[in-house]
Amino acid sequence: SLLPQLINCGQRCDCTEHDLAKDRTISRLREKLHSLLEQTKKAEPTKPLKPPLPTIYVITPTYARLVQKAELTRLSHTFLLVPQLHWIVVEDSPHRTGLVSEFLSHSGLAFTHLHVATPHERKLQEGDPSWLKPRGAEQRNEGLRWLRENIRSQEGGVIYFADDDNTYSLQLFEEMRWTQRVSVWPVGLVGGMRYERPIVEQGHVVRFHTGWRPSRPFPLDMAGFAVSLRLVLANPEARFDGDAPMGFLESSFLQSLVTMEELEPKADLCTKVLVWHTRTEKPKMKREEAMQKQGLGSDPAVEV
Amino acid sequence: SLLPQLINCGQRCDCTEHDLAKDRTISRLREKLHSLLEQTKKAEPTKPLKPPLPTIYVITPTYARLVQKAELTRLSHTFLLVPQLHWIVVEDSPHRTGLVSEFLSHSGLAFTHLHVATPHERKLQEGDPSWLKPRGAEQRNEGLRWLRENIRSQEGGVIYFADDDNTYSLQLFEEMRWTQRVSVWPVGLVGGMRYERPIVEQGHVVRFHTGWRPSRPFPLDMAGFAVSLRLVLANPEARFDGDAPMGFLESSFLQSLVTMEELEPKADLCTKVLVWHTRTEKPKMKREEAMQKQGLGSDPAVEV
Repeated sequence: SLLPQLINCGQRCDCTEHDLAKDRTISRLREKLHSLLEQTKKAEPTKPLKPPLPTIYVITPTYARLVQKAELTRLSHTFLLVPQLHWIVVEDSPHRTGLVSEFLSHSGLAFTHLHVATPHERKLQEGDPSWLKPRGAEQRNEGLRWLRENIRSQEGGVIYFADDDNTYSLQLFEEMRWTQRVSVWPVGLVGGMRYERPIVEQGHVVRFHTGWRPSRPFPLDMAGFAVSLRLVLANPEARFDGDAPMGFLESSFLQSLVTMEELEPKADLCTKVLVWHTRTEKPKMKREEAMQKQGLGSDPAVEV
Repeated sequence: SLLPQLINCGQRCDCTEHDLAKDRTISRLREKLHSLLEQTKKAEPTKPLKPPLPTIYVITPTYARLVQKAELTRLSHTFLLVPQLHWIVVEDSPHRTGLVSEFLSHSGLAFTHLHVATPHERKLQEGDPSWLKPRGAEQRNEGLRWLRENIRSQEGGVIYFADDDNTYSLQLFEEMRWTQRVSVWPVGLVGGMRYERPIVEQGHVVRFHTGWRPSRPFPLDMAGFAVSLRLVLANPEARFDGDAPMGFLESSFLQSLVTMEELEPKADLCTKVLVWHTRTEKPKMKREEAMQKQGLGSDPAVEV
C-alpha cells in the first residue's frame, strides 16, 4: 500500500528543526498512523509492500524579490499534496539566505537547499524585459549536479523544472511520475498564447502548436516537460546552456537526451492544460518610499 | 484528538462526484485511517471526542478571465491543507459557469457555489485602474446571505474574505480560527507598502500603519481581518456597501460590527506577515491573436 510513502510524506532528508505548529494536519496524521500501525501489526501478519512510488524531484530556481516568500509559500502547498516529492530549491545567490532556509525548514517538505550566483553579465538588469536573457540556467544545472552526485536511480524517479511563479495542478505530477525518457504536455498562458502544446498523432508527437519559432528543436516551455532521472544519469553532459539564444534554453538541454519521436505525450495525448505559466505583478512601493522619506516606513526587520 | 476532523478534511457538503485521482494523498490517508480505526475500535473502549474545531468559512468572489482556473487551482491547494474549512465561491455572473462547477466538484473541498452579477454601472471597464471601483461587494454580500440562511452558530465559526489572487500561509488560518468578534493581522505587499498592519499597545489595536488615509474607520485590507460567524448572525444588517468611496469598503462592513478597541490582534500582536496581497499579471495574447488571423489559433474547446 501507499502507507509507508504517505507516512514519509513531508519528512525532510536532513535533520533541520521543524515547527510542528505549522504542519498540524500532516504531522498528526503521521503520528496517528504510526501509533495505529503499531497496534495493528500485532494482529496482522506482515504483508508484502507494493513497489514504492517513483520520486518526483522538483528543481526550482528562486531569487530574492518582494514576492519571493509569497511565491514559495503557495507553491509549497501544492507540493505538500503530492506524494513522494523531493523539492530542490536553488537560490540565485552566493550564499543560502535566512529567508529561504527558515522557510524550507518549516515547510513540512522533503527538500534540498542549494545556491549558485548567476554571473553578472547574464543577469537581467532593472528594466530589461523578462525574455531578454535565459534565466535560471545555472541554478537548474546546479540541481542536476546535486542529483548526479547524490542519487542512484534504482527506484525510478523523474525530474521536473518548476519555476516559483507558475501554477501546477495535482494531476500534473501523477502524469509525469512514470516518465521513461522525456514526457510532455500542454502549458497554459505561455508564449503569448492561450496555450502551447505538442500535437500528437497515433500516440507520438509530430509537431508543436506554438506562436513562436516552431522550428526550434523543442519549442516547449520549461514547465511543459519532465525527464527521467535514469536518462539524466546516463547522460552526464546534458545541461542547460546559459548562452543559448532566447527561446532555445529548453532545446539546449533536451536535444542531447531525446528525439521528438521518443517524447511521451501525457495529459490525454496533450489535450488538457494541467499547468499554467502565470506571472506575478511586481508590487508598487510608491507609498512605502514616500513614507520612508518621512521616517514612517515599514520596519525592515519584519520579513515579508 | 483531531482525528475526526482530519478524516473529514476534504469531505464535501453535497453529493457531487469526486475524482479520486486528484486527491490521492488525502483520500488514501482517510481510507487507511478509517480501516485501521475499525480494527482498533474493537480493542479500545470508546473515548470521548474533543470539541470539534470551529469551521473557517472562506468567501471568495471570482470572475472569468484567462488566469481564473490557475488562481482557483493554487488557492484550493492551500485550502486542502486547512482542517475544517468550508469554501464559499461566489461567481460574478448571472449563472454558475461550467468551469467553476467542474473545478469545485473535483477540488476535494467542502464548498458552496453561489453567483451574483455585479450591476453594470459598478463593473470595472477595460482600462480602468483596479482601484477605481470597489470590487466584489455584491459577491461577498451574497456569501453572507447564504451563511445567514443556512448556518446556525452553535459551534463557533469564523468568516474570512479571501480574494482568489492573494497568497495565504497555513498559519494564518489557525490564527483566525478562534476569533470572538473581529481579529486582525498584517498584510504584505498592499497599498503600495511592504506591509500594512495594526499597531498594538498593551494587547489592543491603537492605530494603523498604512500609507493611505490612516483616518479611515478601518484602514485594513480585506485580507487583514476575519469576523466571527456569531457576530455576523447577531448583526443581520451588516454588509459591504458597493457605493462606499474608494478604500472604505472594509470600513462600511466593520464599523457596524466592532470598535477599534475590540479588535483582536493576531500574528504575534500583528508583527508577522502571514498573508500577501499578490496580484497576477494579465497574460499577453498578441501571438494568439496573430495566429487566429491565420486560422492557427489555440482550440477554444480546450479549457485553460
